[in-house]
Amino acid sequence: MMASKVTPQSEDYSRWYTDIVQMADLADYSPVRGCMVIKPYGYTLWEHIRDGLDRRFKATGHVNAYFPLFIPMSFLQKEAEHVEGFSPELAVVTVGGGKELEEPLVVRPTSETIIGHMYAKWIQSYRDLPLLINQWANVVRWEMRTRLFLRTTEFLWQEGHTAHATEAEAREETLRMLGVYTDFAVNDAAIPVLEGRKSETEKFAGAVVSYTIEAMMGDRRALQSGTSHFLGQNFARAFDITFSDENNALQHVWTTSWGVSTRMVGAVVMTHGDDQGLVLPPKLAPYQAVVVPIWRSDDELSLVLEAVAQVKAALEGSVRLKVDDRAELSPGWKFNDWEMRGVPLRIEIGPRDVQNGQVMLARRDRPGREGKRTAPLAGLASAVQDMLAAIHQNMYDRALAFREAHTTYPDDFEGLREAVADGFGVAWWCGSAACEAKVKEETGATIRCIPLDQESGHGPCAVCGETSAERAVFGRAY
Amino acid sequence: MMASKVTPQSEDYSRWYTDIVQMADLADYSPVRGCMVIKPYGYTLWEHIRDGLDRRFKATGHVNAYFPLFIPMSFLQKEAEHVEGFSPELAVVTVGGGKELEEPLVVRPTSETIIGHMYAKWIQSYRDLPLLINQWANVVRWEMRTRLFLRTTEFLWQEGHTAHATEAEAREETLRMLGVYTDFAVNDAAIPVLEGRKSETEKFAGAVVSYTIEAMMGDRRALQSGTSHFLGQNFARAFDITFSDENNALQHVWTTSWGVSTRMVGAVVMTHGDDQGLVLPPKLAPYQAVVVPIWRSDDELSLVLEAVAQVKAALEGSVRLKVDDRAELSPGWKFNDWEMRGVPLRIEIGPRDVQNGQVMLARRDRPGREGKRTAPLAGLASAVQDMLAAIHQNMYDRALAFREAHTTYPDDFEGLREAVADGFGVAWWCGSAACEAKVKEETGATIRCIPLDQESGHGPCAVCGETSAERAVFGRAY
Repeated sequence: MMASKVTPQSEDYSRWYTDIVQMADLADYSPVRGCMVIKPYGYTLWEHIRDGLDRRFKATGHVNAYFPLFIPMSFLQKEAEHVEGFSPELAVVTVGGGKELEEPLVVRPTSETIIGHMYAKWIQSYRDLPLLINQWANVVRWEMRTRLFLRTTEFLWQEGHTAHATEAEAREETLRMLGVYTDFAVNDAAIPVLEGRKSETEKFAGAVVSYTIEAMMGDRRALQSGTSHFLGQNFARAFDITFSDENNALQHVWTTSWGVSTRMVGAVVMTHGDDQGLVLPPKLAPYQAVVVPIWRSDDELSLVLEAVAQVKAALEGSVRLKVDDRAELSPGWKFNDWEMRGVPLRIEIGPRDVQNGQVMLARRDRPGREGKRTAPLAGLASAVQDMLAAIHQNMYDRALAFREAHTTYPDDFEGLREAVADGFGVAWWCGSAACEAKVKEETGATIRCIPLDQESGHGPCAVCGETSAERAVFGRAY
Repeated sequence: MMASKVTPQSEDYSRWYTDIVQMADLADYSPVRGCMVIKPYGYTLWEHIRDGLDRRFKATGHVNAYFPLFIPMSFLQKEAEHVEGFSPELAVVTVGGGKELEEPLVVRPTSETIIGHMYAKWIQSYRDLPLLINQWANVVRWEMRTRLFLRTTEFLWQEGHTAHATEAEAREETLRMLGVYTDFAVNDAAIPVLEGRKSETEKFAGAVVSYTIEAMMGDRRALQSGTSHFLGQNFARAFDITFSDENNALQHVWTTSWGVSTRMVGAVVMTHGDDQGLVLPPKLAPYQAVVVPIWRSDDELSLVLEAVAQVKAALEGSVRLKVDDRAELSPGWKFNDWEMRGVPLRIEIGPRDVQNGQVMLARRDRPGREGKRTAPLAGLASAVQDMLAAIHQNMYDRALAFREAHTTYPDDFEGLREAVADGFGVAWWCGSAACEAKVKEETGATIRCIPLDQESGHGPCAVCGETSAERAVFGRAY
């Protein structure tokens, strides 16, 4: 029954974010440092994210499995870059069953090593390849500064781990899964993303190449929303994952890994949310529509509830529907409450609507008069489907327009400085870590990615002026 | 391509079990003591178990959420029986981010305490009740002697945690969820179960009453397959979970918890499996039917593959189907392979079948000639559905008959000793822990449950002869 208001985005975006996450009941702080509780409404959103991804993984030939939470410390040390990258972030179990352990166990920060060990056991012949496995799991990375969904010590994610006979196949898989992530972001989450390669500095510890999808949040910062790594033979060598090829020669496999986490919930909040609360894409929303009956007398109530029952019958099975018939709350209070929770479509039914054989539809993505219209009760199911599709499209278009409005193509360092102060700067980059570091030092921006989609050509590096063959996307990031 | 054979049940049941679990690709040992790897085939089986339960939880008004993996050690100590019960089994994180932690964190063995802490924060008024939350998660209990699926240091499970305004409501919920488990066991897993109450000795650490579903495995031992606990106000008091009732008086809530784990996979294996391998209930099987084309020449092959395509088209969407058209393997080899993996129905298609417009159906639950019959291609979908339903029923009936054949009703201690040597003994019990302990000491059997379904009446305790009002089910257990 709280009436407290969200901090406006313009006042303090960061507070707006944590207000929304808590007031819309997505998550709560836990008594364990850096760990959050995902509340039922937030978890249902995550279930839809999970199902949308899982369906796509299965359609591309992947199967799920489950590997241990604990990893022997010695495993992490087998891949030099990997252990260096993850060491500062580890949670370590040193006591089990009341006894000091001989070898400490790391709570998995990611599972390349333990899975690598198992793959070495499972893979013998080229006939065992490709091996296309995904895992849904919790992972732990000790974080100093945490934010709900965006950076927490424990988070939920999926991690795909595949092994292939050839480099070409593994590279193809890496990009295929990047494409799956983009497809999910665009078509389920209504989030436009930039597909690209990470710089050497920003890539995954142990990868040959890391790819990413990068989205622009409402404060014009970038959020890395999914990554796909070509691991070459790095882990295959570290864990001795070999196979006999068709000529009976022993070879190391080529591996990939790719992941999307509960961070995606943060991406949804910050791409679409406004000062009234969440705005959820219809494919992912726990409820796609909420019915709010409006009445003043008992006579009106029974009339209206009859129409509500008809609406429910018409939409059941095709729309995730919530009927909010709580008697102790006013329609206005309910409108605000469901706006806060980002339900894409509100269906209002009052006595006059019943008389006219219609309902009022109000779109969350277009607050106010502009987003309201009546719809006849007859044929409501298809009107609602059409409107949900239109909402999705509008949300995507708006997010894309926003990103484009805050993306510039600077030629020099001053331009780049201005670009990243406002959003993304797409600039020629010579590829040197020194230029990358200079940008970070002076502007706080990093290379989000080197976009896959590039016009060919050459230009001067925005930092050092050297002739460069590629543009990079610079931006401040979460 | 292994041709190794399963150890027969009659020779060594325990080896038969681990043979099956590994040879049917359900799970594998991991390099981490006591932790297993759930392989894709086993994980898919678990996904169907999970979905079957999750659907039932949602239909009874529950929602999912997610709570932290780590629990401050001090939380466990707040409920005296709880900490005593779980202390010997804890895995403890003492180092995080490179530093010794001030307070060690326990890797959750179960989540009553951390959830209790959050409920105290979330629940204010009677309007917040009941709170009906379930969590799908991994938990860790340090086990000395482990067995794949049955007892592993880490396992997957769901744990429901509910809070109610009244004792009656909480007791009702406890039994409702026991009923949900029974419904799942019977209708999805084809496993007959006994519903009952645990003795004081065997109940959950911190519960007022624990209920259980107990199943009889193929070696006539009992497997506890799901539990539902009425926790009274024990955790509400320990974590100060209170609410204002309708008269504005402050009261402690009443809580329940209930869980089913990956152990259910072991129950499926040991209830139905035979010396040829797994026998999977159709509702849970990763593949419900496998199509094996049979051919000798290329001409036959193209003829047969055409029919396979027809079968596929006819069954797609209604049956989880696998087409095994691997050219390098003989039909006989494939038959054995899919029998090992327990696929309920095999559909054989040879050139003669094509000519006759039919296929051969072979049931896994009835090996040999008896389980084979032809079915016309026309109307195949409904014939397959009928057969899957018949397979489920037969599997259930057979398991029930087996349990009944190995259940006796002894009147005295000698009779009880014989009863538990063969299976279950249902005997009058005076309720004393001393009699319970004597049975355990002398026969190795424990009280599996005091069945809910009891004829009223009285009889002499099978151990001490004292007049008793209830019968208990005794049996040796996993």
